[in-house]
Amino acid sequence: MRGKHFPRPGTAPNVDRMKILLIGASGTLGTAVHRTLAGRGHEVLTAGRGSGDLRVDLTDPDRIAELYDRAGLVDAVVSAAGSVPFKPFAELTADDYRAGFEGKVLSQVELVRQGVSKIAERGSFTLITGVLGREQIVTGSAASLANGALEAFVRAAAIEIAPQRVNAVSPTVVTESLPAYGPLFAGMPAVDLADVAQAYVRSVEGGLTGQVLIP
Amino acid sequence: MRGKHFPRPGTAPNVDRMKILLIGASGTLGTAVHRTLAGRGHEVLTAGRGSGDLRVDLTDPDRIAELYDRAGLVDAVVSAAGSVPFKPFAELTADDYRAGFEGKVLSQVELVRQGVSKIAERGSFTLITGVLGREQIVTGSAASLANGALEAFVRAAAIEIAPQRVNAVSPTVVTESLPAYGPLFAGMPAVDLADVAQAYVRSVEGGLTGQVLIP
Repeated sequence: MRGKHFPRPGTAPNVDRMKILLIGASGTLGTAVHRTLAGRGHEVLTAGRGSGDLRVDLTDPDRIAELYDRAGLVDAVVSAAGSVPFKPFAELTADDYRAGFEGKVLSQVELVRQGVSKIAERGSFTLITGVLGREQIVTGSAASLANGALEAFVRAAAIEIAPQRVNAVSPTVVTESLPAYGPLFAGMPAVDLADVAQAYVRSVEGGLTGQVLIP
Repeated sequence: MRGKHFPRPGTAPNVDRMKILLIGASGTLGTAVHRTLAGRGHEVLTAGRGSGDLRVDLTDPDRIAELYDRAGLVDAVVSAAGSVPFKPFAELTADDYRAGFEGKVLSQVELVRQGVSKIAERGSFTLITGVLGREQIVTGSAASLANGALEAFVRAAAIEIAPQRVNAVSPTVVTESLPAYGPLFAGMPAVDLADVAQAYVRSVEGGLTGQVLIP
């Protein structure tokens, strides 16, 4: 009865070498994700505002269209890019909330919205959100809003884009950033970049969709 | 030992007659909330785009500032207003997502952001979200995004605005709207408007903050 309750050794699906478009490749997180995906044999095409194989300003939907045209057919789109203002509640302006929406939410929504007609038939999207979708810190209300928006979007978009897939990776503060951001996330457990990168692997190589992966 | 495990009868806090600013008062939900709050002895000042004691275009932050100036000091701000596009994923545009953000998210964020310096010291805000923050339907990805954004915002803003309070009411489809919207929400339990209005009462008269109330 081997194989009744557990997969037999050697029966995992073969994941072929994929062509992966990685946005935000030059950041702390993007660098780790790049290293991990390339180390698993995938071809990684990097994109970023100021560096990478392809340049893109994610806040301009027209630039995202150009990005896809230049990238050609890819199997997975992986985002490690998004910016949102952190300020005390009393100092945040309407334009700050708009900036967070354009800089982290709509930019990644557009990667999916435009990407569905451009990437492989069974391709996937992996977006970046963050712990503030479910935890709260002072100065974090625009960030919480952005993460909550994306996580609900991922769950909803998934049911309409199948068999393509979409997930979010939602890390807490990363160990490597504790010197800079530790005080903001006082008392929250940190996560190593290598473990965050593994959540991207789960999303890209696995069959999950509509999930918020917490590494 | 009476009173050890349960409040003694008659010890509930006295909730004085409040002055409540109700946005979106003329809609199906707003009408029910108005009736319920007025029936509990509160003074309800109504506001809406085309009717009410005060007129306001919530998508314009300057108009919200004028609204507060004309309303004077209120004890609670209650919103039953917000609009977001419903379309199949493939038909939604970047501007549709922006319209949902401006029409449901930023409009209500601005009620809180501008309101903290205008309403009573221990006043409250009650926003409207909806079931699509936690459930998904075809055509609902912009709505899910908007509700997820607001619910995360409410949790985050609450920790910074205390002793003022902020909550969201997140109803499923209301019974009274089943003829129009029932097919979209197939298989989801409906909720009576009267019960949704009670969730507003819990938020306004109670001590909760940072909560998503599911009536």
